[in-house]
Parts: sequence; structure tokens; C-alpha cells
Amino acid sequence: MRESGNDATTETARTRSWWGWGTIEDAATGPELEALLARITALLPNADLTDHQPPEVTALNLPAARVTPPSSLASLCSDDLLDRASHAHGKGFRDVARNLQGDMSHAPDLVIRPQNEQDIIDVLDWCTENRHAVIPYGGGSSVVGGVEPRFTDFPATVTLDLGRLNQVLEIDHTSRAARIQAGVLGPDLENALRPHGLSLRHFPQSFEFSTLGGWLATRAGGHYATRLTHIDDMVESMRVVSPTGVGESWRLPGSGAGPSPDRMFLGSEGTLGLITEAWMRLQERPVHRAGASVIFDSFEEAVEATRAVAQSGLDPANCRLLDTVESALNAGITTGGGVLVLGFESADHPVDIQLARATELCRQHGGTVHDPVENRSASPAQAWRTSFLRMPYHRDALARRSMILETFETSCTWDAFPALHAAVTEAAQHAFADVTGSGLLTCRFTHVYPDGPAPYYGVYAPGKWGSVLSQWDEIKSAVSEVLVKHHATITHHHAVGRDHRPWYDRQRPELFASALAGAKRALDPAGVLNPGVLLQPAS
Amino acid sequence: MRESGNDATTETARTRSWWGWGTIEDAATGPELEALLARITALLPNADLTDHQPPEVTALNLPAARVTPPSSLASLCSDDLLDRASHAHGKGFRDVARNLQGDMSHAPDLVIRPQNEQDIIDVLDWCTENRHAVIPYGGGSSVVGGVEPRFTDFPATVTLDLGRLNQVLEIDHTSRAARIQAGVLGPDLENALRPHGLSLRHFPQSFEFSTLGGWLATRAGGHYATRLTHIDDMVESMRVVSPTGVGESWRLPGSGAGPSPDRMFLGSEGTLGLITEAWMRLQERPVHRAGASVIFDSFEEAVEATRAVAQSGLDPANCRLLDTVESALNAGITTGGGVLVLGFESADHPVDIQLARATELCRQHGGTVHDPVENRSASPAQAWRTSFLRMPYHRDALARRSMILETFETSCTWDAFPALHAAVTEAAQHAFADVTGSGLLTCRFTHVYPDGPAPYYGVYAPGKWGSVLSQWDEIKSAVSEVLVKHHATITHHHAVGRDHRPWYDRQRPELFASALAGAKRALDPAGVLNPGVLLQPAS
Repeated sequence: MRESGNDATTETARTRSWWGWGTIEDAATGPELEALLARITALLPNADLTDHQPPEVTALNLPAARVTPPSSLASLCSDDLLDRASHAHGKGFRDVARNLQGDMSHAPDLVIRPQNEQDIIDVLDWCTENRHAVIPYGGGSSVVGGVEPRFTDFPATVTLDLGRLNQVLEIDHTSRAARIQAGVLGPDLENALRPHGLSLRHFPQSFEFSTLGGWLATRAGGHYATRLTHIDDMVESMRVVSPTGVGESWRLPGSGAGPSPDRMFLGSEGTLGLITEAWMRLQERPVHRAGASVIFDSFEEAVEATRAVAQSGLDPANCRLLDTVESALNAGITTGGGVLVLGFESADHPVDIQLARATELCRQHGGTVHDPVENRSASPAQAWRTSFLRMPYHRDALARRSMILETFETSCTWDAFPALHAAVTEAAQHAFADVTGSGLLTCRFTHVYPDGPAPYYGVYAPGKWGSVLSQWDEIKSAVSEVLVKHHATITHHHAVGRDHRPWYDRQRPELFASALAGAKRALDPAGVLNPGVLLQPAS
Repeated sequence: MRESGNDATTETARTRSWWGWGTIEDAATGPELEALLARITALLPNADLTDHQPPEVTALNLPAARVTPPSSLASLCSDDLLDRASHAHGKGFRDVARNLQGDMSHAPDLVIRPQNEQDIIDVLDWCTENRHAVIPYGGGSSVVGGVEPRFTDFPATVTLDLGRLNQVLEIDHTSRAARIQAGVLGPDLENALRPHGLSLRHFPQSFEFSTLGGWLATRAGGHYATRLTHIDDMVESMRVVSPTGVGESWRLPGSGAGPSPDRMFLGSEGTLGLITEAWMRLQERPVHRAGASVIFDSFEEAVEATRAVAQSGLDPANCRLLDTVESALNAGITTGGGVLVLGFESADHPVDIQLARATELCRQHGGTVHDPVENRSASPAQAWRTSFLRMPYHRDALARRSMILETFETSCTWDAFPALHAAVTEAAQHAFADVTGSGLLTCRFTHVYPDGPAPYYGVYAPGKWGSVLSQWDEIKSAVSEVLVKHHATITHHHAVGRDHRPWYDRQRPELFASALAGAKRALDPAGVLNPGVLLQPAS
């Protein structure tokens, strides 16, 4: 969703935070922090916002690594304390909360950074032979426990960090595609493509700290609110290394030759193999843009307007509906029903006519156009964008102050949304009352389809220091039960990991679970790849 | 590709041809046949067009059915000779040629027509227990040997014809989706949706005689030249019956929860289970249309123009490039480089501006706009459409006269197309010289993507009666070798079946083959489902 690949070009030296999001230098401080705390206090007056310092890494008391790598691999391996701690958790609220409490019950024994495919093959051979668990690792931005060695039944755990496989290897201008290594971070990828006038245009919120391989393995959602919503459709071919071999699909714009090989590995979350590189479909950089924000007095009307736009075939790049709380909190605007942020873009032709038709549809459903793109800097759209980029840092600042801040997201058909939304809201309110005394639930649509929206919910609740993890787990469980009951997916683009397993297992058809397990047995007979994710028992 | 779902509403009683395409009443006769033969004579003067009558079914000497169904299933079963013969082959040239020669070395022992899901479960139980091979059957229009019991190592073969599961069960207007049984034929499906103002808008050439289940199992290509090219993206959820159980995915507009369950069954061609019903995404019927034909003096320029349109983001519904031979044969127009047939459509907004931009791109690449849509009845686009619908019947008329008429289709990236096309052309010309003395190769793009086209080739060669099958196999093998060598898919939308196995096996990554085999072992442990397709040894 983020569009600021440009930022990275002016980047100065920064230090990654081991316990929280991004870099230490970018943490919320000063007036930004004060304003944030003031907003929270106004909304949740009973919140105790006492600051708690994160512990030192040395205070985590990590046990010594249980394994020594063979000499052939030793130069790629690290058992450094900070390295192991930094790779032990993802970056969700559960992770940050546990880090802040010094709660790191599992950490990898080794962090291995392969320099090429043969290194990966060698590591998999060694691990398969010794039954060491292997956790594929890109940028480590999982918010679902996808990179965490949350198991005890393996003699050792190795985190395979693909960060050194970070090159754009080949560009095909004619077909607008590039062969890209899996370990490249978002900004580095865009920096490599920019001189060629090309872009992947995949901008998840994690863009700066997540990798192509991670996006592919988790079916990440990105910039486009319609059509190319997930990374899936941008894949032309993929290369995968499994314990039993290496496979690469052909570069095909389209094919009907059997089930799609790529679709089996997209979303496999490191359980079937490691994606090492992919030919990705690229975009020319857009030169025509048109955008507007539309304000509604009623959320129901806003939803109907959004549905009309989603079903119109206009395919806006941006079509994000913010409810009233989200509008107030993150777009700086007070509305009765919400704001729909619309954006069109093209490298080929003007898009004003598409915007005009989309806003016409909105007006027919009770919307008022707030600001055409001319007044962009002061627009709710721009305010939203700025908030969006700062959200993870705000989450960290508030997590230090006992606040529970997390999101959950889903998708459902349009006909199912009103009942789902009512039930989610009710369950969250009950959970707030039971668990934290108070709390706020926000809702936005991050992506929309002709047959339904992808609602994305935000939770703000005043926790109790020392209990925030169990408090959040209780809230999460309550709303997840509602999703499953309404047959809404447990995740639209955050992946399953270990955190979503109980609900994913109920969502996934048993027949497919059995097929997937059969595929895993064939590719990973020792069962060492990312245990507990998708398939094996989660502990 | 066909847009004439309307035809079916005025249909009168017709008799299906057991040996050829469609119905006996619709065969090419009279002036149509004379004109066809005159065209062929002009193009291929050495063709011997002596007519050979199809044999009587009784002359096929089918062996008696090798199995008696249990009494509980008997009422669903037929061992009628005509039934068995009609289900023995698909409808490709290989099938028609063999039928005309009375060559039916394998036929199913029984044709079973389940009335509901429990019937299917019962049949699968019975077949699994007795190791009877099961061939899932929709409309039987496979052109790749997908429904043919071409194996000898099973005690009996059962063809499971889903034709009785032909209802639209539920319509969700709000989300624009419908729950549809797999055995419904194209016209019946559209007839059921039309009163609701909705349409699947999936119109393969086989539309009249193929089913939703067949489209899903084979990843069929349809009406849309861009975006919704295959049926895959129109699927919201699917229900599948396997020997080990029944599974149904949830209705999700989008999801990132693990690998897509539906994508494993899409293209599985009856080897993993029977698709019994699906929730399909629908379209409103278009009310705005704009189209044009653009003529080129050079095929290279035509290809470049088509690429520009495919990469423009304009997303025409129709974007079919016909080369000079295809233009002359099937669109009635003589050009130096070919014709690009463009069409835009929308249920929501006018599309003239999109057409204007697309034709502007074509002009920049040397194209001349032939006819705006006003002069539609005389246009190459309209001539092409009429030809397109009559092609299978013409194929049959010519197959009776020793002509080899068949197509093969692929996709590749834009950068790879020129070399591939040159190599395919050369291989075909060599094969014609070696095998039939002369022949014509035509080329069109049926679908286009930002990263490459889907070229579709037509073969017209004068065969020798009694040898046409081996002659065609030799030509097919020559061009298929070129496809594999250039890493172009062995099929873009015709499926793999049994005919494409040798090349599919080389195209498919071994790693994926192993995963797919693992999935099949889990779902079909007795290996009775469509043996020889995709996975097991083809005999």
C-alpha cells in the first residue's frame, strides 16, 4: 500500500530495532509522540500510559545454541545473541509485547545466511539429515508467528535468512518482467528497477522491511486495492528449493497445463520449500493520476457506494473505505459514515474520466466529494497515507505503555458483510468490556473485489502491564471465532503462520489439508520446514 | 470466445453426432460445404477431397462391457453401445479421424449418470474397492484425449457423466455470484442467468457442448482476451468429491490463508476428484460496446501494436490478432500483415475512449483502422465470429475428406515470441514437406497479457485416407518439440489430457510433479481417477 519507495534513496545509516518495528532512529518521539499520547488519552481516558523500557538483549537469558554447524557451513552461520534474538519473533503485537516483557522462550540456535542456492541446498541436506527444524526468513516482518521456532520437538532450529540473495538478476523490458532474488527488500528492489522506468508496485505496509520471497511465501497484499491485490498475480515463474530437489516453472504469461505449479508454493509459508527467485511482472511507472476522497453520512451508504465502484469495472488503484473512527484517528476528518479514498493511475492514458464516473457512483449513494487531487497535501487521503506509514512505530510507542494495538483482517462476500461486521463489532465490544474495560474497534476496506470487500480491523485497548499478551489473545480469539462462524477468511493477506492455525484448520477443507500434507510428505519427508505452520501440529 | 449464448433459446430438437462435433443437423452441407471445399481446393490443389462416410456404430465391434454394476447403482448405468461409443473419445481431430476409421480400441464399459452427490460418492466407493478406472465427463469436448480410456491395466472403466447435475442452485445478486452444478452446459447456464441480468461470460468455442465442471477441471479459456482469460479467476469457491472425501472451499473474494485450495483442483483434469459445484463470479450483461478492426502491412508491426495495447492497461475484452492466412481464410480480408480485432464492453460506462486510445496505439505502430463498429455486419470481426462458430463443423466435413485440420496453442513472453514463431513455422513447413507434401499454418492470438501473447496455430494439410492419424501425430510432434525447446507452454487453454503428456512431463518442474503425485496419493489412493492424465504413466 505504501508508495514511497523513493524514501530509501536518501536513507542514512540506521539501526534495526531487535524488539520492535523498523529502526531505532525512526521511533516516535518528541511532538509526534506527545500528540499520539494525547489522542489516546482523549479516546481512552482510563489507559495507564506509563512507559516501560525494552529490556537489554543480554537480559533475555537465551540458552546457548544447541548445535555446531559443520565446517563447510560455518562461515554462513551466526550464533550471536542479538542475531538470534532478532530472529526469534516476527513483528506483530504479540511479538513486540513479549519482547518488551523479556519473554523469549524460543529462539533459533543458528542464523544462517546463504550466499547462493548451493548454500541453501547444503543447509537443507544437513538439517534433513539431523532433523533440525528450518525456518525460512525474509525480512522477518511476520505478524502471525510465521518465523518463530514455537516448538520443542526438534533437536535444534536454524533460521535461514535469505537477506544476501538480494539482486535483480535480469530485466526483460519487452515483456516488462524481471528475474529477482527472493531476499531483496522492497526499497532495494524498487531502487534497482527505477532506472529502467519500471516498478513492481507492490507496497505493503511492511515494504521497507520485507522481501520479495516473504511476499510470495505469504501471498502478501499490496498497493492495488483492486485486481492485482495480492502478489500472486504478479508472478510469471518461481524457483523453489526443497529438501528433495530444486524446481523452476517456465516463464508463462498464461497457461492451462495442469494445476498451476506456482500456486502451490504461493502461500506455502516456507513449509514446502524456499522460494529463491522469481520472474515478476512489472509495471511502467504511472504518469497519469487522479484521486478524490468521498465523505458519507452513513457507513451503510458508504459500503454500498464502495460496492458500486468495485463492481463498475473501473478498477481504481486505490479504493479504501475508512469508517468513522478510522477517519478520525488516521485521516484527520470527522464524518458520520466514513471516507472513501479513491485513486486511479496509469502509465498510458489520463484517468480523470474513470475518477469522474467513480465519484458519480458515490454521489448516487449519498457521498460528497471532499477534495479533488489539487488540494492533496491537506486531504484525508494524504493524512491517511502519513498515518499509515507511521502506524507500526506508533504501535511500538504505545505497546511500551501497556496499550494493546493490533489489527486483524478478512474478506467476505458483499451479501455477508453487514452481518459479519455487526457480529465482529459486538464480539469486540464484549471482549473489551470483559478484558480491558474499554477499547476501540476501527474498520477499513484495504482491498475490494466485485464479489466482496477485504475488511481490516484495528484494535486499541488499554492493557495491564504484564498481562497484555493474554488480554490480546482473548480479544483475538473472540473476533476470530466470529470470522470462522461467518465463513470469512482468517486472513486476507497477513498469512496463517502459527497464530492463525486454530481457525485456519477449521477454514481449510479437510480434503485440501490432506492433499497439502501429501505434497509436503513428498517434498519435505523429514518434516523439517517451518514446523507448526499450515500443516503440522502447532505447539 | 463465443458470444452467442442467445442461440440456445431458439433451439429445436437435435441429435448429437457420436463421431464428430455437435449435432447432425448442424453439419456443413449445401452451399456452405461447396464454398468450403472450393476454398480448400484453391489453397491446397493436391488435396484428394473424396468423401468417406462415417461407419455405423454397430460396425465398431466394441467388446461387451466387462462389468455389471451393483444393483444399487444399476439405474444410473448404461452399457448401451451408442452411449459407450459416444463417450469413448473426445472431439479433437485425433478423435474424429479415429471415429471415421472405425478405430475405437478402448471404450468405457459403463456410462454412469449420477443424479446427486451421494451417487458420485457411491460410484467412487465401488470403483475404488474394485479398482475400476473412473473417467469424469462433462460435455466430452476434450481435444487432448482427456476423456478417453486409453489404458489396459484396469479391470473395467466407468465414465462418470455429470450431465444430470445441471442446475443453477442459488444466485447472490448483491455479490454477483451463483452456485452452479458442474454438469450444466454453456447455453443452459446462460439461459438460467439471463432473467437475472447476469452472465458468466465464459464463451469457449466449445460453449454449446461443454460444461462448467469441464471448464474448471481443464482451466478453460473463454471470452475475455485480457484479464479474465481463464475460468480460474471467476471461481469464488468449489466443491470437490474425491475417493477419500468431500471438500468445499469458502466463498471468499480474496484470501491469503495458505495456498489456494481451489487452485489445486483447477486444472486437475479429473485426477484428484470430481468438481460437483462451484460458486462462480458473474458479470452484469454489457450495455456499452465499442470495437474496431485494425489492418497491418507487417505482422511484426501488428505484434508490436498488440503488445502496446496489451501493456496499456486498457484491457479490451477482445484483442485477437489474426495473421494474413487466418485473415484471408476466416475473416474474409486480404492483408499484408494481419488484422487486430479489438472490442471493449462495459455494463457501467461508455468505452469509446478506450477504443480510441487502443486504435491510436495501433496507428502509432503502422495500423489502419478498417471499420468502426457501425459497419459491423460486413466487418472482418463479424466474418471472423461466424467462421469461429462454424470451424468445428468444417473440420468434420474436411476430416471426412482426408484433410488434416487441427489446432495447437501456447503462450510465451513477448521477447520470446519472434524466435518461437519462426521456429514453429519452420518446423510445420518441414513437417508438411515430409508428411503431407503441402500444408498451411495459420496463427492468431486468442488472448494477450502484459507479458506475452497466447498464440493459437491452425494446421490445414491434405492427408492420405487411412494414414491421417499418424500423419497428424508426426506434425503435432514436430511443433510440440519446438514449443518445449522454447519453453512455451504445451497448452494455454486446451488442457493436457493424454495427448500432451510427453511434452507436459518435460514442461512441469519435477518438484511440482512430485508434490502433485503426493497430493493424488492422499486423495485417490487406489489411483482410479482418470489414469494416464497428468500423473500416471500414459499408455
